[in-house]
Amino acid sequence: MPNEDTICAISSPPGSGAIAIIRLSGEDAIPIAEKVFQPSKKGKILGKQKANTVHHGLIKENDAIIDDVMLSIFRAPNSYTGEDVVEISCHGSLYIQKKTLEILTGSGARLAKPGEFTMRAFLNGKMDLSQAEAVADLIAGSSRAAHDVAINQMRGGFRDLIKNLRDQLLNFTSLMELELDFSEEDVEFANRKQLKSLVDKIEKLLKQLTNSFVLGNVIKNGVPVAIIGRTNSGKSTLLNRLLREDRAIVSDIPGTTRDYIEDIISLEGTHFRFIDTAGLRDAGDNIELLGIEKTYEKLNQASIVLLIIDVKESPDSIKKTVTEIQSHIKGKDKHLVVVLNKTDLTDTRQVTEMKKLLDSVLTDKDYCVAISAKHGRNISKLEDYLKEAVNLDRYNRNDVIITNARHFEALRNAHQSILRVQQSFRDDLSGDLIAMDLRHVLHSLGEITGEITTDEILGNIFRNFCIGK
Amino acid sequence: MPNEDTICAISSPPGSGAIAIIRLSGEDAIPIAEKVFQPSKKGKILGKQKANTVHHGLIKENDAIIDDVMLSIFRAPNSYTGEDVVEISCHGSLYIQKKTLEILTGSGARLAKPGEFTMRAFLNGKMDLSQAEAVADLIAGSSRAAHDVAINQMRGGFRDLIKNLRDQLLNFTSLMELELDFSEEDVEFANRKQLKSLVDKIEKLLKQLTNSFVLGNVIKNGVPVAIIGRTNSGKSTLLNRLLREDRAIVSDIPGTTRDYIEDIISLEGTHFRFIDTAGLRDAGDNIELLGIEKTYEKLNQASIVLLIIDVKESPDSIKKTVTEIQSHIKGKDKHLVVVLNKTDLTDTRQVTEMKKLLDSVLTDKDYCVAISAKHGRNISKLEDYLKEAVNLDRYNRNDVIITNARHFEALRNAHQSILRVQQSFRDDLSGDLIAMDLRHVLHSLGEITGEITTDEILGNIFRNFCIGK
Repeated sequence: MPNEDTICAISSPPGSGAIAIIRLSGEDAIPIAEKVFQPSKKGKILGKQKANTVHHGLIKENDAIIDDVMLSIFRAPNSYTGEDVVEISCHGSLYIQKKTLEILTGSGARLAKPGEFTMRAFLNGKMDLSQAEAVADLIAGSSRAAHDVAINQMRGGFRDLIKNLRDQLLNFTSLMELELDFSEEDVEFANRKQLKSLVDKIEKLLKQLTNSFVLGNVIKNGVPVAIIGRTNSGKSTLLNRLLREDRAIVSDIPGTTRDYIEDIISLEGTHFRFIDTAGLRDAGDNIELLGIEKTYEKLNQASIVLLIIDVKESPDSIKKTVTEIQSHIKGKDKHLVVVLNKTDLTDTRQVTEMKKLLDSVLTDKDYCVAISAKHGRNISKLEDYLKEAVNLDRYNRNDVIITNARHFEALRNAHQSILRVQQSFRDDLSGDLIAMDLRHVLHSLGEITGEITTDEILGNIFRNFCIGK
Repeated sequence: MPNEDTICAISSPPGSGAIAIIRLSGEDAIPIAEKVFQPSKKGKILGKQKANTVHHGLIKENDAIIDDVMLSIFRAPNSYTGEDVVEISCHGSLYIQKKTLEILTGSGARLAKPGEFTMRAFLNGKMDLSQAEAVADLIAGSSRAAHDVAINQMRGGFRDLIKNLRDQLLNFTSLMELELDFSEEDVEFANRKQLKSLVDKIEKLLKQLTNSFVLGNVIKNGVPVAIIGRTNSGKSTLLNRLLREDRAIVSDIPGTTRDYIEDIISLEGTHFRFIDTAGLRDAGDNIELLGIEKTYEKLNQASIVLLIIDVKESPDSIKKTVTEIQSHIKGKDKHLVVVLNKTDLTDTRQVTEMKKLLDSVLTDKDYCVAISAKHGRNISKLEDYLKEAVNLDRYNRNDVIITNARHFEALRNAHQSILRVQQSFRDDLSGDLIAMDLRHVLHSLGEITGEITTDEILGNIFRNFCIGK
């Protein structure tokens, strides 16, 4: 797949700002830049400048000055894409960004497709496919955990692990296939004991990696939490209370609009994503309205259900509500958290009795906490429980954790093949069957790193990138 | 005003994207970068690198890798601010942007205030105040005309003009003040004839510049256009028709959301800003509902009023509507454009008669055009009229045009003082009075370039900048 054309795109975030970055990559990146850029220093020729240097000058369209810019030069193969790259740092007005792109495309570059810079980096051997995918995850990752997993993957943690397995396995598989050529002679080039031990090791690792996808999913997408309860039980007050501190931190950064973080809180690097249970919010005075199918769906999406109850309600009513919700989530691997709210409006004795009463109803997976959302009482206790429920302690900063559905799919296929290999060993099946399953494992692992790939796979992966990366 | 601290900010547009730029400026920019940046090349020391070079490496928080970045070094005085500057080009996730800022502020930098980089550039003599203000205009400028005026001003066009006047005038004023020291002797150091001629020249120029503010305002903020008419007269169809082509071009750029350009069209570089006359849109079947006060206010904001009329209405009804609108805008320096719509549903004869009828009502400033918004008939004729009404031909790409209210104010003060000087000459008043008025002129001009300024003026100017510039 040769990339003969030179591509360009705005690489900074969309919109206007102090500075925008426009990136060019390809064989003609520097000659095209030369056409539109007039260096401040007379007689300076971009093509003769060293790699990794920055130059001041003007972007011009014929005689008209479009902007006063800084231009950086990078040279193949020591650039992001592995090609010659030019980055123009211009004033971040929409007009200038648009105009500069127009001038560049008018001078021989073409607009880049989403992820095309990174695709070229992959095609030019600057990174494997798992690293390329991590670039998109890194940009999208908004929690510490998501960031850590992505940067580890981008820096080759996952690639090295997979590559190492694959290389070892490839060696054995080749030897086994060689045996097939000499099948008349009944020789064994591949040491069966070593191979079995390697296969066992690989099976264990693949199992561990596929299992990590549950956690990876939480890391990437956040823990889904549904808050339900009657009107006036204090749902919004609690949500605002949970969001407040987090928002105060995040809102320091320009661009993190309220919309974006509206219903996400981050506790020690884990996102909790609150699911809008609008149906319940409008449920009026009667919890039976829960029955709406749409609301059940929402509950089904949650890993944690926060049931907010006004502690002043009658014990019977509370018990009824709790058991009703319990019956809905039964056997669905969800945590139910009963939040007795408005403790500021009652006395300790009543709260203690209510908790005792609920103890008889709640299971081991459930939890009960008495709070005052209004006065911020016991909120940290609730937060501690949320963190514990997810138990991200299982996760270590340098662990390889699968967050990508494509990788999960490939690993699961690899795992199934390797289980067949183990079975074949147990059944003492012939080498050619084993070799075939080993080839399947190699193929699946190769799909992850991109050693085995198709245009379609690449298209699917890079289509979801942002433009300019 | 010494700037002893080192400032940092995100300089790319807010939000996430492929690349974000974080900028550091100040004496410790490089030492602070050194603390958080681990170069890929072992043993590389940032402090020893040449200016205008780019370096690959990691941003780290203790042992944890935050990102894989490119870092550019610029050295005082050859940088934007005139100080040592470091620019970090990181992956554009919100998490990385936030985290990197945190690490920098934890390592001795402080968050920059809006416009603080540019303010430092001004204080360090890299640009005058009019140029600094142009930087903000350049970033905000979304039309070609606004861009051209801003870039001309940023590159010193206005500064040179004002500085030149001021220098000449300063010379004469000093000579006149010298005369005052020798007042007993009745000498004239300042050649009165030359001075008068200079004063006349300056008066003419100041008048021209203050007058250009009307045009400048249009260039900066767009021409306000109100579209009014009865329901079903085709207002939305026309607006969509006008917006369509422009939108198609603008929407190529990521970040130019529909919201942004919703009601702005750009004709040959001039923005026309359509004022929401919601009151009129809801006016139902009866144009009398126009009477709502709020709607009048909207009409008052417009330079051009597009009155859309269904050509199939009765001549009497049309005439009544036109004269009613005319009476509202009378004497308010507005253009009335009567748009006879739906010509596709009637015959040419009827249209011609209607136009003839209206001729008896319309004034020289008014205009009548028959269109079919639905079929796009005569839309370009309407657009031609809009362009002509604004007459941007008066504007030349290299003309100095005042777009800034602060400059306008200062120029108007200077102009009033220079008129007093002219009057004093005519009245043959004494040199000390003339010298005082000349000082006023110098003061006002000095305010524009920032030779005369206060913390308050600077505060007001830079407060409106974006962060990171």
